Amino acid sequence: MKYVGSNVEDIKIAYIGGGSRGWAWGFMSDIAVAEDISGTVYLYDIDYDAAKANEKIGNSVKYISGAKSSWQYKASDNIEEALQAADFVIISILPGTFDEMESDVHLPEKYGIYQSVGDTAGAGGIVRALRTIPMFEEIAEKIKKYCPDAWVINYTNPMTMCVKTLYSVFPEIKAFGCCHEVFGTQKLLKSALEEMCGFKNIKREDIKVNVLGVNHFTWITKAQYKDTDIFPVYREFADKYRESGYKGEGDENWLNRFFSSTQKVKFDLFLRYGYIAAAGDRHLAEFCPGDWYLKDKKTVEEWGFALTPVSWRKEDLQRRLEKSRKMLIGEEKFELKETGEEGVEQIRALLGLRDLVTNVNIPNYGQIPNLPTGAVVETNACFRANSLMPVFAGNIPQEIYPMINRVCAEQENVVKAALRRDIDGVFNAFVTDPNINIPIDEARSLFNEMLENTREYLKMYF
Amino acid sequence: MKYVGSNVEDIKIAYIGGGSRGWAWGFMSDIAVAEDISGTVYLYDIDYDAAKANEKIGNSVKYISGAKSSWQYKASDNIEEALQAADFVIISILPGTFDEMESDVHLPEKYGIYQSVGDTAGAGGIVRALRTIPMFEEIAEKIKKYCPDAWVINYTNPMTMCVKTLYSVFPEIKAFGCCHEVFGTQKLLKSALEEMCGFKNIKREDIKVNVLGVNHFTWITKAQYKDTDIFPVYREFADKYRESGYKGEGDENWLNRFFSSTQKVKFDLFLRYGYIAAAGDRHLAEFCPGDWYLKDKKTVEEWGFALTPVSWRKEDLQRRLEKSRKMLIGEEKFELKETGEEGVEQIRALLGLRDLVTNVNIPNYGQIPNLPTGAVVETNACFRANSLMPVFAGNIPQEIYPMINRVCAEQENVVKAALRRDIDGVFNAFVTDPNINIPIDEARSLFNEMLENTREYLKMYF
Amino acid sequence: MKYVGSNVEDIKIAYIGGGSRGWAWGFMSDIAVAEDISGTVYLYDIDYDAAKANEKIGNSVKYISGAKSSWQYKASDNIEEALQAADFVIISILPGTFDEMESDVHLPEKYGIYQSVGDTAGAGGIVRALRTIPMFEEIAEKIKKYCPDAWVINYTNPMTMCVKTLYSVFPEIKAFGCCHEVFGTQKLLKSALEEMCGFKNIKREDIKVNVLGVNHFTWITKAQYKDTDIFPVYREFADKYRESGYKGEGDENWLNRFFSSTQKVKFDLFLRYGYIAAAGDRHLAEFCPGDWYLKDKKTVEEWGFALTPVSWRKEDLQRRLEKSRKMLIGEEKFELKETGEEGVEQIRALLGLRDLVTNVNIPNYGQIPNLPTGAVVETNACFRANSLMPVFAGNIPQEIYPMINRVCAEQENVVKAALRRDIDGVFNAFVTDPNINIPIDEARSLFNEMLENTREYLKMYF
Amino acid sequence: MKYVGSNVEDIKIAYIGGGSRGWAWGFMSDIAVAEDISGTVYLYDIDYDAAKANEKIGNSVKYISGAKSSWQYKASDNIEEALQAADFVIISILPGTFDEMESDVHLPEKYGIYQSVGDTAGAGGIVRALRTIPMFEEIAEKIKKYCPDAWVINYTNPMTMCVKTLYSVFPEIKAFGCCHEVFGTQKLLKSALEEMCGFKNIKREDIKVNVLGVNHFTWITKAQYKDTDIFPVYREFADKYRESGYKGEGDENWLNRFFSSTQKVKFDLFLRYGYIAAAGDRHLAEFCPGDWYLKDKKTVEEWGFALTPVSWRKEDLQRRLEKSRKMLIGEEKFELKETGEEGVEQIRALLGLRDLVTNVNIPNYGQIPNLPTGAVVETNACFRANSLMPVFAGNIPQEIYPMINRVCAEQENVVKAALRRDIDGVFNAFVTDPNINIPIDEARSLFNEMLENTREYLKMYF
Repeated sequence: MKYVGSNVEDIKIAYIGGGSRGWAWGFMSDIAVAEDISGTVYLYDIDYDAAKANEKIGNSVKYISGAKSSWQYKASDNIEEALQAADFVIISILPGTFDEMESDVHLPEKYGIYQSVGDTAGAGGIVRALRTIPMFEEIAEKIKKYCPDAWVINYTNPMTMCVKTLYSVFPEIKAFGCCHEVFGTQKLLKSALEEMCGFKNIKREDIKVNVLGVNHFTWITKAQYKDTDIFPVYREFADKYRESGYKGEGDENWLNRFFSSTQKVKFDLFLRYGYIAAAGDRHLAEFCPGDWYLKDKKTVEEWGFALTPVSWRKEDLQRRLEKSRKMLIGEEKFELKETGEEGVEQIRALLGLRDLVTNVNIPNYGQIPNLPTGAVVETNACFRANSLMPVFAGNIPQEIYPMINRVCAEQENVVKAALRRDIDGVFNAFVTDPNINIPIDEARSLFNEMLENTREYLKMYF
Repeated sequence: MKYVGSNVEDIKIAYIGGGSRGWAWGFMSDIAVAEDISGTVYLYDIDYDAAKANEKIGNSVKYISGAKSSWQYKASDNIEEALQAADFVIISILPGTFDEMESDVHLPEKYGIYQSVGDTAGAGGIVRALRTIPMFEEIAEKIKKYCPDAWVINYTNPMTMCVKTLYSVFPEIKAFGCCHEVFGTQKLLKSALEEMCGFKNIKREDIKVNVLGVNHFTWITKAQYKDTDIFPVYREFADKYRESGYKGEGDENWLNRFFSSTQKVKFDLFLRYGYIAAAGDRHLAEFCPGDWYLKDKKTVEEWGFALTPVSWRKEDLQRRLEKSRKMLIGEEKFELKETGEEGVEQIRALLGLRDLVTNVNIPNYGQIPNLPTGAVVETNACFRANSLMPVFAGNIPQEIYPMINRVCAEQENVVKAALRRDIDGVFNAFVTDPNINIPIDEARSLFNEMLENTREYLKMYF
Repeated sequence: MKYVGSNVEDIKIAYIGGGSRGWAWGFMSDIAVAEDISGTVYLYDIDYDAAKANEKIGNSVKYISGAKSSWQYKASDNIEEALQAADFVIISILPGTFDEMESDVHLPEKYGIYQSVGDTAGAGGIVRALRTIPMFEEIAEKIKKYCPDAWVINYTNPMTMCVKTLYSVFPEIKAFGCCHEVFGTQKLLKSALEEMCGFKNIKREDIKVNVLGVNHFTWITKAQYKDTDIFPVYREFADKYRESGYKGEGDENWLNRFFSSTQKVKFDLFLRYGYIAAAGDRHLAEFCPGDWYLKDKKTVEEWGFALTPVSWRKEDLQRRLEKSRKMLIGEEKFELKETGEEGVEQIRALLGLRDLVTNVNIPNYGQIPNLPTGAVVETNACFRANSLMPVFAGNIPQEIYPMINRVCAEQENVVKAALRRDIDGVFNAFVTDPNINIPIDEARSLFNEMLENTREYLKMYF
Repeated sequence: MKYVGSNVEDIKIAYIGGGSRGWAWGFMSDIAVAEDISGTVYLYDIDYDAAKANEKIGNSVKYISGAKSSWQYKASDNIEEALQAADFVIISILPGTFDEMESDVHLPEKYGIYQSVGDTAGAGGIVRALRTIPMFEEIAEKIKKYCPDAWVINYTNPMTMCVKTLYSVFPEIKAFGCCHEVFGTQKLLKSALEEMCGFKNIKREDIKVNVLGVNHFTWITKAQYKDTDIFPVYREFADKYRESGYKGEGDENWLNRFFSSTQKVKFDLFLRYGYIAAAGDRHLAEFCPGDWYLKDKKTVEEWGFALTPVSWRKEDLQRRLEKSRKMLIGEEKFELKETGEEGVEQIRALLGLRDLVTNVNIPNYGQIPNLPTGAVVETNACFRANSLMPVFAGNIPQEIYPMINRVCAEQENVVKAALRRDIDGVFNAFVTDPNINIPIDEARSLFNEMLENTREYLKMYF
């Protein structure tokens, strides 16, 4: 890459999972409106055709009205070409197919275990991790070989365990994991401020939060908007909506049936523990003792959120494939639509074009003193030229410490056991998961069935 | 007290709970055979008559054949007299009566929650803590006022929370908690060595162990007998008895029906996690996820241990009352019988008469680096003249870290909330207990019922 | 204060030391060009006339061309009025007069101890601290009483010990210390980049540095400009000028005789220890073993820096007093001239008008893991709405650790001893200062003479 | 080795430096009176003849009246044979000859730097370390290869750096360093108790101390004898003898001219800093700022201790060689004389024959929380069967923290630099030593001369 005036040109970005019909399109959109950076995005995907399709779609973006920078897209049929001397690497993959995910999410229902997402923690998250960790080991090895100085942005779940794997294999890697769940909570705080205080036109970024925890089970210990401490406002708001739930601005889209949440889990956790849980209710629920919010379908309904069936994801994929097909033949146009993700701003900050403070997932250097050093945690961090340093976040508050520490340690155990191909060790972590409250022998059966269902991706363990 | 030659005379010991018909008698026995110390034991009990009875019994001990030292016993009807300028304080009380304990242990069964002991963690342990903490606050205040330099030995459960309370109220207190559960595990290791290696006449004290964890959920990370590493021996032993359980030397006493254990929980934890859980199975089970060993009565039976009903404790109390009555009127004789407890040896070491390294419960100064500083933990410690320093025990091994950290943090939360009389805060800890896997609203009902049942001892919270 | 659109109005700032003819004028200038904030600055000074003069000068600033905001100035004859409900407090005082400083700086020369500044560490810094600490105790008490929620910005030296005093007296204080020495080093790095790489028009702020250490003995462990790692560039630059020194752009002003530095100390430290010392050479020299750079006047000359005589400060004060007089009678005009200090930007960030990452002096929460928690350290920190959180800076590199840790601990000891009015304790720290290499009895004489000379300000110790 | 009843037989001990005419004889004496252990001591020395001589001497010991156990001695001409399957390794070597030591100790006098011992810290200690570290690297490698499970006892100076080297090369090594300096201080405390309190016949071991620091600069923060806190007694004692010094029981031996000390340094440090420095004054002085106690010969004399000239060591060696010669030809008899060292008791404890708590030098695991993890520190530790665990010692008290931390970090830097053969890195540590207060260029000359003088042992660095 090279610096020309206030612009940076010839940036090379490797996009692992570049055949994606979701995240990749969002990224194309975001990067097209960043006017001071340009270069080439190498799209690598195990589905090369998908990458080729995205190459074509991507190369059309710069002609769309509103595009401010010019990016080339190039599908690679080998990861080495994509990574070679890359300045940035984006990792956003689906480990396996939705068939595996279906087993992850729904098989446990047979044992009375319900999961609202099933990609992070719990039975689904752990078995997904077993598939993902070996893939990330390979990616980390390749990055070490082909672009050790690249900045690596991961969007793949299970986030914590993916990032931990990268650092375990290549400790000098410059990697971090990004997740928008905290943004969603900032938006909720914005709604609370607007409703309770009459403020108008608040920007999400102006809600300043101190974030800590592990991905999808992050908590806010301080939230400020200008001179307003948001905690008392949010308390009033949570009290108001604790029973009914908060519906927001009527997002009546049919999609929402399976993603909806009325924030009741978030309100309950806040009203009981005094800190703002900062992820979607579907995620939060999975980190809590199983009987709290996920005992059965009725409980889920009462708490006002939804279990997302993988069948929906499969249907949705069909829609996105169709959309891709149409874009390729020109029947549909690519839409420039900012995603609200911060990936592009992070890239600009790492290039030295701005400073940025936002939340990311990286190893704990002491930003959370009462979680183990080296465990992957989520806090704010400071992005500047070629530098990412965590902002000190403080201790996990005592009240929520047992819940967070437990899952943090569990995820550490899963990664460590998976890296040494120790299935029993993984099971020992599995069986202590808060959402797996069944006898050991049943847990063993469940675990074995889940492995059996996804065995194609787990050969290295046997 | 004063040093005369190699003896120490005129030692003053205050025994809080001195009316006890169990521990107190054991202590009388142990101290009677320590030939180099003598003095007076002040017996304080809220049941003054019981203390008076023990005064009489105690004063007879020195005449028994085998008694090597002469101790005076004196019942006090006020704690101040007992504590005034005491050199040592022993705390061994029953918080409330067995009626309260009955509620602690058995009420949760209505909600499908079974407890084998119910005095340490879980529903029973937490509600017992609510009664005990205010008592220990008062004791700590009195010690601060009447004998701030005394060494304080606690035997009362819930051990961790009792000791934490003492230090919370009077941080300079010289207190520690003693528990014999590790000794029992050392004896099991001795059996394993004798059976698998053919060693003979091993003394428990010669099984050198590195102990860490929290009371009743302590673990051994290293065990050595002379030049034999006990871990591989124990592995073989555990494998041999994993199914059948280990019955030991046929302790066919009828009592054992309710205290029996065949070590299967211990073997299971070892075979799965690789470290030796070092407490009785009845205690260990309560710290594990509820469905593992305590799902229902059948599960308990399959794992070869027993739920101890409080009705048994009540009957047993009657037997001990009868025994007391008989000793008072001379129908029965006090028996000198060493208990195997180390309290007297600890006293001798603190007097400078020997060095002693053994396991105790004290705040964490760093002896377990990956548990929070200040949390009460159990490790070895070094007793020397007027000095008790923890021996560095190392990190809790990663595999068992989530289980131990969780309960350690939970107990910290109970004590902190109880000290600030925050019943909701206590409930927030209650509901995360591993053996309380029920929906929040049911947990709330259970909690409220338990409080209601024991409300006489809980007035300060309302 | 109140938020009006994107502006903040009615801000109340208390300026302690508001009679100053240097820093206060600079602050007036900086704040006059910040267009989105306005309010009142209360000027408090023990010299009320000086404050009155500055009130008049300050109130004229808004009429000057270039002024973008309107600030009222008001002299207070009592600190309570100034602090009452202040939003911000600025502390910039001279502890005592230049007569005391003369003793601090020059008396030690009698004992062969030379000081280039004498206000931070060493004999002068410590005795200055003895005067300053009681003043800061009082200020902290008053802030606690009159404006506990105010943000407090300290510019007074000895920086570390002043900030430590504030937090010792009022642990919840929202205080930080600001110093421009790192900025000077950034400018030197800018010169190096321009000279060695041919870059042009680099802005100081675009030199991104990771800063750590204690004030005036801060070090840079990473320095980046866009995609350029500055370390190798600076190495070449330091090698080039190690003998001759670097003169810069010919700042031939007569003033410089006493403030000049040719960066040779900085180059030497870098070339030997591998990290960039980030303060003026006059400051750095005082933290190093005395014989390195301050053995005698000749040594100082050879290292290309200057001892600043207090006589010069006295003369300079006369010039500034004259300038003040002229401005008051209209003979001279106030000049708007940005100082390069970041105080106003910090205020704007704390108001939520921007994010800012820059270096400050605050207690160590873990931003430097290998310095003691609670010691005041200098690192980057993140300023956002009503929030200041340190950025994790990492361990002090092993090579320079003994030098920094030593002085950090020494300053902790001075403050602790001074707070308990323990002159012997202060002496024990004094005698371990790296620039005080004389026998204990001589050190005692020196110390006593220095106290005697400044006794008017030290009555509380005797 | 094998356990037979309560004895352990066939123990193999490798003695590196086994040709010694001092320590080796003491060890032979100590081990001869331990009745429950026996086996073979392999004597390895680069001077094989010396080892052969000691073989003969050693084999005669068991016939001496008073010998209670039977040990074989065997000289080895290769270290591999000595180490092969050893149970214990003792390292007690002279790195180089007294000619090198003469340079270490006396050359710095040319630069005005005096050293009382010159084997631990300061100019002499550092250059001695340069010779020693490569030797210890080799020893560690060999231990790793030939007896990785052996317990390794080091007596060689510079103690801290030797032990650090062993652990750096072979992190799993079971090594510790022993030093009797603390025992000497215990004896002084015994004298103080006897003189001030009238106690009689105190045993050194009954003075219970909490020790912390680095070897030869260890400090006692708590000292107890039975129920007597020794601190106030020692304060009175130190006050009494602060001027005159304490001569003890008239050890008028001519030897003492060069080893004498009247404890004035120890008293001064105690009276100023409040903690008991626990090493001989000759050692303590070298860790303090050079001008305190070692400014010049007159200063040393005033402080009542002595500089030990290497010429004396050379003469003494001649005497010992002569003694050896006489013993070999039967003109002189080996004398059984217990040394007061604890090596043999440590061995017995590690064999499981007793428990022992005493001070040793091992890496910091957290026993001193405010020194870096991994740095070699001296505290109490608990010796039990095949186990050595540090006893928690607490933080270095704030008052003495800068002095101890500084030298701890300096020694870390020397070892790290020496291990990477970085002579400039060693110099950077050298020049910050508290007893090297000279300009950098002079320090460089001194350093270079010292290296030149001992270059035969330093080839690996060039």
